[in-house]
Amino acid sequence: MPRSTVFAAEMAWPDYQEQVKGGDVPILIPLGSMEQHGHHMPMHVDVLLPTEFARRAAEEVGGLVAPPFTYGYKSHQKSGGGNFFPGTTSLDGASLVNALKDVVKEFVRHGARNLCIVNGHFENSWFITEAIDLALRELDWADIHDVKFVVLSYWDFVDQASIEKLYPNGFHGWDIEHGGVLETSLMLRLHPELVSLQNAVEHAPATFPPYDVYPAKPDWTPASGTLSSPKEATAEKGDLLLEVCTKGIVKALQDEFS
Amino acid sequence: MPRSTVFAAEMAWPDYQEQVKGGDVPILIPLGSMEQHGHHMPMHVDVLLPTEFARRAAEEVGGLVAPPFTYGYKSHQKSGGGNFFPGTTSLDGASLVNALKDVVKEFVRHGARNLCIVNGHFENSWFITEAIDLALRELDWADIHDVKFVVLSYWDFVDQASIEKLYPNGFHGWDIEHGGVLETSLMLRLHPELVSLQNAVEHAPATFPPYDVYPAKPDWTPASGTLSSPKEATAEKGDLLLEVCTKGIVKALQDEFS
Amino acid sequence: MPRSTVFAAEMAWPDYQEQVKGGDVPILIPLGSMEQHGHHMPMHVDVLLPTEFARRAAEEVGGLVAPPFTYGYKSHQKSGGGNFFPGTTSLDGASLVNALKDVVKEFVRHGARNLCIVNGHFENSWFITEAIDLALRELDWADIHDVKFVVLSYWDFVDQASIEKLYPNGFHGWDIEHGGVLETSLMLRLHPELVSLQNAVEHAPATFPPYDVYPAKPDWTPASGTLSSPKEATAEKGDLLLEVCTKGIVKALQDEFS
Amino acid sequence: MPRSTVFAAEMAWPDYQEQVKGGDVPILIPLGSMEQHGHHMPMHVDVLLPTEFARRAAEEVGGLVAPPFTYGYKSHQKSGGGNFFPGTTSLDGASLVNALKDVVKEFVRHGARNLCIVNGHFENSWFITEAIDLALRELDWADIHDVKFVVLSYWDFVDQASIEKLYPNGFHGWDIEHGGVLETSLMLRLHPELVSLQNAVEHAPATFPPYDVYPAKPDWTPASGTLSSPKEATAEKGDLLLEVCTKGIVKALQDEFS
Amino acid sequence: MPRSTVFAAEMAWPDYQEQVKGGDVPILIPLGSMEQHGHHMPMHVDVLLPTEFARRAAEEVGGLVAPPFTYGYKSHQKSGGGNFFPGTTSLDGASLVNALKDVVKEFVRHGARNLCIVNGHFENSWFITEAIDLALRELDWADIHDVKFVVLSYWDFVDQASIEKLYPNGFHGWDIEHGGVLETSLMLRLHPELVSLQNAVEHAPATFPPYDVYPAKPDWTPASGTLSSPKEATAEKGDLLLEVCTKGIVKALQDEFS
Amino acid sequence: MPRSTVFAAEMAWPDYQEQVKGGDVPILIPLGSMEQHGHHMPMHVDVLLPTEFARRAAEEVGGLVAPPFTYGYKSHQKSGGGNFFPGTTSLDGASLVNALKDVVKEFVRHGARNLCIVNGHFENSWFITEAIDLALRELDWADIHDVKFVVLSYWDFVDQASIEKLYPNGFHGWDIEHGGVLETSLMLRLHPELVSLQNAVEHAPATFPPYDVYPAKPDWTPASGTLSSPKEATAEKGDLLLEVCTKGIVKALQDEFS
Repeated sequence: MPRSTVFAAEMAWPDYQEQVKGGDVPILIPLGSMEQHGHHMPMHVDVLLPTEFARRAAEEVGGLVAPPFTYGYKSHQKSGGGNFFPGTTSLDGASLVNALKDVVKEFVRHGARNLCIVNGHFENSWFITEAIDLALRELDWADIHDVKFVVLSYWDFVDQASIEKLYPNGFHGWDIEHGGVLETSLMLRLHPELVSLQNAVEHAPATFPPYDVYPAKPDWTPASGTLSSPKEATAEKGDLLLEVCTKGIVKALQDEFS
Repeated sequence: MPRSTVFAAEMAWPDYQEQVKGGDVPILIPLGSMEQHGHHMPMHVDVLLPTEFARRAAEEVGGLVAPPFTYGYKSHQKSGGGNFFPGTTSLDGASLVNALKDVVKEFVRHGARNLCIVNGHFENSWFITEAIDLALRELDWADIHDVKFVVLSYWDFVDQASIEKLYPNGFHGWDIEHGGVLETSLMLRLHPELVSLQNAVEHAPATFPPYDVYPAKPDWTPASGTLSSPKEATAEKGDLLLEVCTKGIVKALQDEFS
Repeated sequence: MPRSTVFAAEMAWPDYQEQVKGGDVPILIPLGSMEQHGHHMPMHVDVLLPTEFARRAAEEVGGLVAPPFTYGYKSHQKSGGGNFFPGTTSLDGASLVNALKDVVKEFVRHGARNLCIVNGHFENSWFITEAIDLALRELDWADIHDVKFVVLSYWDFVDQASIEKLYPNGFHGWDIEHGGVLETSLMLRLHPELVSLQNAVEHAPATFPPYDVYPAKPDWTPASGTLSSPKEATAEKGDLLLEVCTKGIVKALQDEFS
Repeated sequence: MPRSTVFAAEMAWPDYQEQVKGGDVPILIPLGSMEQHGHHMPMHVDVLLPTEFARRAAEEVGGLVAPPFTYGYKSHQKSGGGNFFPGTTSLDGASLVNALKDVVKEFVRHGARNLCIVNGHFENSWFITEAIDLALRELDWADIHDVKFVVLSYWDFVDQASIEKLYPNGFHGWDIEHGGVLETSLMLRLHPELVSLQNAVEHAPATFPPYDVYPAKPDWTPASGTLSSPKEATAEKGDLLLEVCTKGIVKALQDEFS
Repeated sequence: MPRSTVFAAEMAWPDYQEQVKGGDVPILIPLGSMEQHGHHMPMHVDVLLPTEFARRAAEEVGGLVAPPFTYGYKSHQKSGGGNFFPGTTSLDGASLVNALKDVVKEFVRHGARNLCIVNGHFENSWFITEAIDLALRELDWADIHDVKFVVLSYWDFVDQASIEKLYPNGFHGWDIEHGGVLETSLMLRLHPELVSLQNAVEHAPATFPPYDVYPAKPDWTPASGTLSSPKEATAEKGDLLLEVCTKGIVKALQDEFS
Repeated sequence: MPRSTVFAAEMAWPDYQEQVKGGDVPILIPLGSMEQHGHHMPMHVDVLLPTEFARRAAEEVGGLVAPPFTYGYKSHQKSGGGNFFPGTTSLDGASLVNALKDVVKEFVRHGARNLCIVNGHFENSWFITEAIDLALRELDWADIHDVKFVVLSYWDFVDQASIEKLYPNGFHGWDIEHGGVLETSLMLRLHPELVSLQNAVEHAPATFPPYDVYPAKPDWTPASGTLSSPKEATAEKGDLLLEVCTKGIVKALQDEFS
């Protein structure tokens, strides 16, 4: 019998409990941000995309998707333009670490033993690591020793063959794929009504010196806020990305949680 | 010219900046929880409802709605059944305080000076108070002295006349309106597909002694998780609630932010 | 043989140990504040009153009274006039949570298993909840699983019959009983030398809109700092309150700790 | 006109404000502990004594005494016997630091500019230092730059001449004056009803190696909990101590706050 | 006149003050770790190397080198083998953030306005970012607005031409250069007595799936603890690295701090 | 077979593991500071000296020396001149507590059960106490109950006979031995190239009133930053100190860890 929803928060608690109590059903937690993504995209791209990947993977592996984290860590100049942009709305590192630690421990209390963090905002990465490490420590103190976490960022599943199709004129690294072809293609496929490609600003890929400065220097970031041009984005590329990343995420969950 | 959206995160940053930089446009931040709401309702009722009130109020006053907080403070036995229920997924007090403090300071950085917390989960209340107090302290240190906050829970705007219509057989207090007529009527009106009234469990209003015990005693809470029966809920009552609460919230914002 | 004192800190440690080590003797911890209580009462009302209720209950149930917390959480405008008053001297939420958490864990180290928080300051409530929750978590990590807490505020034991005697002209809710008939009557009975009823300011019961604003607006609070008039307070009403609340507290302890 | 009380919390707020708002009136904050003090003394010696010294000094210099801190930092083996004793009830360092930081900032908000910490528990010392340093930092952020603190422990004012009178058979250092002649003499003078000198255990002065071990080794501490014998304590010695210490404290306040 | 030392802690304070008070002299703070680096290298490689780069750069730009941080953030499986190795000795994220925040604020108190973090341990990166962001916030509260930070990891200055010389058989990315050619060549050049190349374990470059798991799976890491073979390391390659990285760091400091 | 080094971080991890895994080998952790030590000595005296004592003791007892903490708690006026001096670079109490707590837990993870903190900076003392207490608590939660700590400051092992040789003209207490005969003699013996005795400022021993003031009053401290004159320091006295303190430390470790 098909489940009516994979979104845990859309379920009544007895239905949720039925699925979670055994421990095997993976819980997928999308982590995003509210962050500027250029002139052509909305500020919750990093919430929408990991939530969709989590949904697709949950459908495949029989998992459940937790409510997304709607705010994330501060935007870094070289991967998100910098936190000085209006609209970018971020948490301190400790705030993110503690909130995520709390939430994963709650899912373990419900019975879950297989948890997956589906990250959509690069800057969250190390604070996820810390949150999971602290959660495992506290679970250990509570004599719970059988919890497994998979932590992933969806773009890491794009393989070389796909990169060549997505970036026929050369790929400049995931770092500067902020508001570029990757995210824009996915949004064009999933939420075209939220994309105004005509507002996208074309510019050369952002380049940075091999170090950081603080306070960030706004003139290092293209004025639009994107770090590479989204002009080559298409809904078809979005399809390709959805397929390759979902497939990779599903395989990861199957490999680690079975 | 009508705005295409009141949801800040659906906007591109230049459009957002245009509205926020002057300081007058109110930012409304919905605060919810992931919490069991009985056998007949999903676990994100406390996110959906304040987000909708925030949306309606923002339409009226020219405000913007920030992404909701999808997790909140621990469920209290006398107002949410207790945090021991499966599905209820909560933050420590400090985690909520710090995350909310961070977020409101970011909106102030963007230029906002009028902020409204639209609470949908009773237990969040005092941690909102603390977050706002700490944020005001830090803003003061940063020499920003003109920020105003309105903090509200939507049900506090239901007047006596409405209560009599909603509860013709007697009203037992907001405390035990957990999964009862208030929330169920609103959900029936706004998200009927997420309500299974047939699964609702009828029971007498929960009664508690005049003190709390910890660890909570599960047998103090009706087994369904609701604290009063939702059986008298109707979409029409939802309409009444939407009207009276929205009107009250709008008036509050107009009174305080003009 | 009667005990010479119920105040734990008045005992030498071997006598204390003798009583506590078995685990059954309840420890009652009064939580107060230093907070303005109008022109006619001192600022430690919220310490004196719960300490006295703790003492009376301890006498009845064979418990011990711990030293009171002399400072509490910030005064809220609608229940204490607001924290902007001179004299009101408050802790941040985290400070109160951590100090209380530490103290209750120490009593458990001594052997106590039945602890009661006797609250005299409304605003402490949710931070007590958090402190107890965190303490139980850490006790769980320490493999101590048999600790029980009763958390109470003394006024919650005033029953309807008493309310009618105390407020023959109508009761406006505990919220605004700040420096009003409740506290003043108790102080007149217990510490008349600290009350200057002639300095009390008569005013209509404070009314507030159904939301909060921050920074608080001083003109929302009556200039005296009280929220309802203490003019109808009498020592006789104090007797009534002492009787009904002590009886209720004693019953709670007997019900939960036996 | 004589003031009716020096205890700030015994005053109504308008009277308190009248005295504090100018900034010159010193606020004296007693810091104690709940700590075992041998078989012959109660566990709040460290609260009672600094409160009395604060009271006497406040009378002399026109200051006000704040409510005492009733709990303090963990008992150290070489100065308090060790925190493993039943009855000793202590705060973590951070809890004490934060609570004290909060409280002193509140007195500054009221207008006070001259604050004195009157310590009665040796182990509090460095956490007072940290609390004051953090408070000064935050006051600096708030653009308040004229606050002065005097931090003292009353026994540090005992001069050499007095030591010779108090300890005619030789003085072994303040470290081991835990429950010994110093504190017992003061208690005999001030609170004889709380002292049971007949229960005092005579033993040689405690000696310790020149290092600490953790976990503490209980057999390093005399079984009574005192570190030197109280047998030579007398109320007359208490008078001497009251005089010399009060005089010293008064001079310190006059020197620093005028 | 040549300075006798560039190490700030080797100077007496008046000499230090003379250099720092003007604000222009850069302070370089090496950040390392205690972390296993395979069978052939000691565990303070990440301290020794950034300290040496800091020293060389300080010589060139007239800067001063602060004492290194001898412990760093937890080793990540894909860049340091994982924190489960014996010997690896790490800090929680918050501990590193707070300690670094404290230290940089102290140098600013001394007068420094140009600070450079010279990182030698990849996993420190995001916690440095957070520490600097929090320090800038607090400096802002203290009305100090002219501090600049350069944050760098020395290996990021290795250019493509050098990579080709260092890795003639192909470069597999900095991620897995843990205990490999990069660090081993530098150590062979600088501290040959601490390297036992004969103990080095040859193995194929480590490969990892595109996600992380927690708890880490030890069998994902080569048993030696290195992630790529150090067998091709030579002191001559160390010379090349010293030259290219020092040059790059010097240029960064000159560009940003002049 | 002699070990090639006692410095843990100079070892490759398999060699380290071999020694540590059994639990008996003591780990000695030097704790220092970066603090002014007058005109004649460098600012890392408090790192160099405990590291040397740790090294010597480790040689004798078969222990290992961990990397030193290079920064410590704030300099106190009466024992270090005050934290207002340029060059003095200090941590907040909580930062030191947390970093030390983390590090000792890591050594326990490696297998160590006997740990010794070798303190070289008086002001660290109570924060070491707190760190160890918190670490023991967390180890207890992790079901590790057999860890022992020795905490010492090297100067506490100087006996009366040595004091008479070191200070033939009278000893004024360790408190004011900041940059005086003790530290200078040791540095003259161990690191003469870092001492410029000709720059030492002769002055009478510092005297302070029996209380502290905050903010510190710089004119209470001799302008040189030392608290007693180093003029009588000699390398021979350094030899004496090395001998008596090392002997004492070795005995402490043998007594407690065997």
